[in-house]
Amino acid sequence: MARKILYNGIIITSNSNDEVISNGAIGIEGEKIIYVGITHDDLTTYDENVDLKGNILLPGLVNTHGHTPMSLLRGYADDLHLQTWLEDKIWPLEAKYTPEHARWGTKLSILEMIRTGTTTFVDMYDNMDEVARAVEEAGIRGVLCRGVIGFGSEELRQNKLKEAAAFADIWNNRANGRITTMLSPHSPYTCSPEYISQIIEKSAELNVPLHTHMSETRFEVEKNIEEYGATPVRHLDKLGFFDRPALVAHAVHVNDEDIDILAEKSVKVSHNIVSNLKLGSGIAPVAKMLAKGVTVSLGTDSVASNNNLDLFEEIKAVATIHKGVAQDATVITAVEALRMATINGAESLWLENRIGSLEVGKDADFIVVDANQSFFYPKNNPVSHLVYSGSGRDVKDVYVQGKQILANGQSTTMDEEKVLFEANRMSKLLNDEQ
Amino acid sequence: MARKILYNGIIITSNSNDEVISNGAIGIEGEKIIYVGITHDDLTTYDENVDLKGNILLPGLVNTHGHTPMSLLRGYADDLHLQTWLEDKIWPLEAKYTPEHARWGTKLSILEMIRTGTTTFVDMYDNMDEVARAVEEAGIRGVLCRGVIGFGSEELRQNKLKEAAAFADIWNNRANGRITTMLSPHSPYTCSPEYISQIIEKSAELNVPLHTHMSETRFEVEKNIEEYGATPVRHLDKLGFFDRPALVAHAVHVNDEDIDILAEKSVKVSHNIVSNLKLGSGIAPVAKMLAKGVTVSLGTDSVASNNNLDLFEEIKAVATIHKGVAQDATVITAVEALRMATINGAESLWLENRIGSLEVGKDADFIVVDANQSFFYPKNNPVSHLVYSGSGRDVKDVYVQGKQILANGQSTTMDEEKVLFEANRMSKLLNDEQ
Repeated sequence: MARKILYNGIIITSNSNDEVISNGAIGIEGEKIIYVGITHDDLTTYDENVDLKGNILLPGLVNTHGHTPMSLLRGYADDLHLQTWLEDKIWPLEAKYTPEHARWGTKLSILEMIRTGTTTFVDMYDNMDEVARAVEEAGIRGVLCRGVIGFGSEELRQNKLKEAAAFADIWNNRANGRITTMLSPHSPYTCSPEYISQIIEKSAELNVPLHTHMSETRFEVEKNIEEYGATPVRHLDKLGFFDRPALVAHAVHVNDEDIDILAEKSVKVSHNIVSNLKLGSGIAPVAKMLAKGVTVSLGTDSVASNNNLDLFEEIKAVATIHKGVAQDATVITAVEALRMATINGAESLWLENRIGSLEVGKDADFIVVDANQSFFYPKNNPVSHLVYSGSGRDVKDVYVQGKQILANGQSTTMDEEKVLFEANRMSKLLNDEQ
Repeated sequence: MARKILYNGIIITSNSNDEVISNGAIGIEGEKIIYVGITHDDLTTYDENVDLKGNILLPGLVNTHGHTPMSLLRGYADDLHLQTWLEDKIWPLEAKYTPEHARWGTKLSILEMIRTGTTTFVDMYDNMDEVARAVEEAGIRGVLCRGVIGFGSEELRQNKLKEAAAFADIWNNRANGRITTMLSPHSPYTCSPEYISQIIEKSAELNVPLHTHMSETRFEVEKNIEEYGATPVRHLDKLGFFDRPALVAHAVHVNDEDIDILAEKSVKVSHNIVSNLKLGSGIAPVAKMLAKGVTVSLGTDSVASNNNLDLFEEIKAVATIHKGVAQDATVITAVEALRMATINGAESLWLENRIGSLEVGKDADFIVVDANQSFFYPKNNPVSHLVYSGSGRDVKDVYVQGKQILANGQSTTMDEEKVLFEANRMSKLLNDEQ
């Protein structure tokens, strides 16, 4: 297999010592990392040399919650109360989605994620075969699940669960291992306890993790308590949800007892700070969760509530907003914020042995940031610059499993012009039919 | 004078109707706007035609608070308590500043502001002749003041005031009117009431507005009450500060009575949301201020507490964070957030007759955003896309007084490579002497 070395860069490893290597290099062979360290004069022993010219190289970012087909709805509804937004705007449009809508929405999202440095993303939606095929084609990594809402007839519910299980079963470990799968009840407020129990059972049978929305709004928590006499956390815990590997999105309105449960059961939390702000949901007690040992990673949610998929924005938001709320500038450091988007992300998807940090033996998933711009000057603290001054727009190169899928800002696997055109066309179709 | 038309764009006017013109055009003659409207077939009557190719054109952004020379300190100190940050890190380094440090720090900042779409900025620092000369050379617009701290001997204080007054007097309306000036006591906690009174008097004599930091931290407000028996707002009001045109930065910790005073006295507030978050200062009650009629604009503060000068980040932050804090998604709409960075900014600097919106007779200060990227697709709501999905990195062209100072992302007035090199060298000098 071809051996390649990228040298003369600043390597941010996200390893357990948060090592940053000046004049660093990373060697790869096929899909794997075979060297991380300072640049040696052994460059000629590699088949290919790439001069990083002082740019910053770091692990590919991990986006642990989203709904990629929804990018067709960008800018369609903002500044509205959550229920109005969802019931009057988003759901009616979603109801008109065909597989073709899902396909181009997903491609628009994947293009944007690659362009801004995300190499692994979680997706919960329907028409998931389209999403899986787009992942396969684009060369990105996806942890995918068919989200099921338990409304309607028993037959409808069972069909959805069958579809979700078939998808999880068929696509798990496909695309050279770049796709893994989960099962996913949409939320405790859209799925009955019985239905959730069936999904939990199926996840054990298929040996895949569980994913759900949880405690996103105060209203939802209050309703859950009213209906089931327990917070969504306690409710899910009682159903056995947390006895399986589980990733929950949001966890905005969680109390101390909830956090203890999440910590004790090793539940992974996807913190979607920008979406939670924009929808007026609130601000999750992340510092407290981290202090109690909960693994917290970052998600964008869909562009309908963000409105982009640039994970750098989530990183800066998480490193600044919790400081402001706590009125304490020492809360969530730059290093911690970056870890939430790299190794914590990998741990949240049970992929920490393959990705999330730059270490020998792991898959070669990494990104290169153009540091020859004002935002990265003076050249004194690359992690601070990435977190507080950088943008996904600064990413120039992206590699997944050693294969370059973004080269100098251009996708190597997708026809960008066509994706923009088709996404626009499909969105117009949705809206014109209104 | 040469007449030029930019056509086939989406024109966001920020006029009093918040008009957005599809297939729009803007005509300019010399420094002035002579046409804003739809694209007509009269293009040949202009000396020069520029096809905007569907990109978005909007007023140049206005950054109403900052300290440009401090960009040499980017990434030098983060995640620290405000007093530690200021006293142990920032002040000792600032004490070593020479005019040459100020020069290259300022140039780095101006380069970054132009690159990200800011055409007018407020600066409060020392070595202001360097800042003014850099503004003159770069073609940007500056509202400048020599900030004075009232520590030390009476002689030192009087010398500083003399320097500040001489600067304000000499540079006001220079650089073809692109520079205006203010007088600026640093803050009520670093200047005695007597000293502030002298500065107010001088501002009347020179007929320039006043600028200061105010109510940034809870600690500062408590100390002010302890020392003077009044909040900083009441304290400044009693001194007559608000009987002059006044712009205050921060206003994080203000109570209802304070806000009433700010509204009644038409005090302009520069909201520095990212800096306030990052330093753990808190979150200003902006929705309340707006509701009471206070003019609120946006500032980045310096890169030492931000850590960049991309005003698009402030726009998104202001449109999302207040929603999250209030748990109400209707607080501060996209349109309102954008106005804070355009026309509200102009009003905050008493420049609304010249800049801040695209209207015939105003100066031709505008920017063009590359909308041919995923972030702006589908093409359905340009204001939402700019506010919630855009980035200063998407700005490709910048015009001030009809002169193009950024062309396809490249500065036309500054030697970018030299600025980066010299800023890095000067920063290294500061730190090596530690």
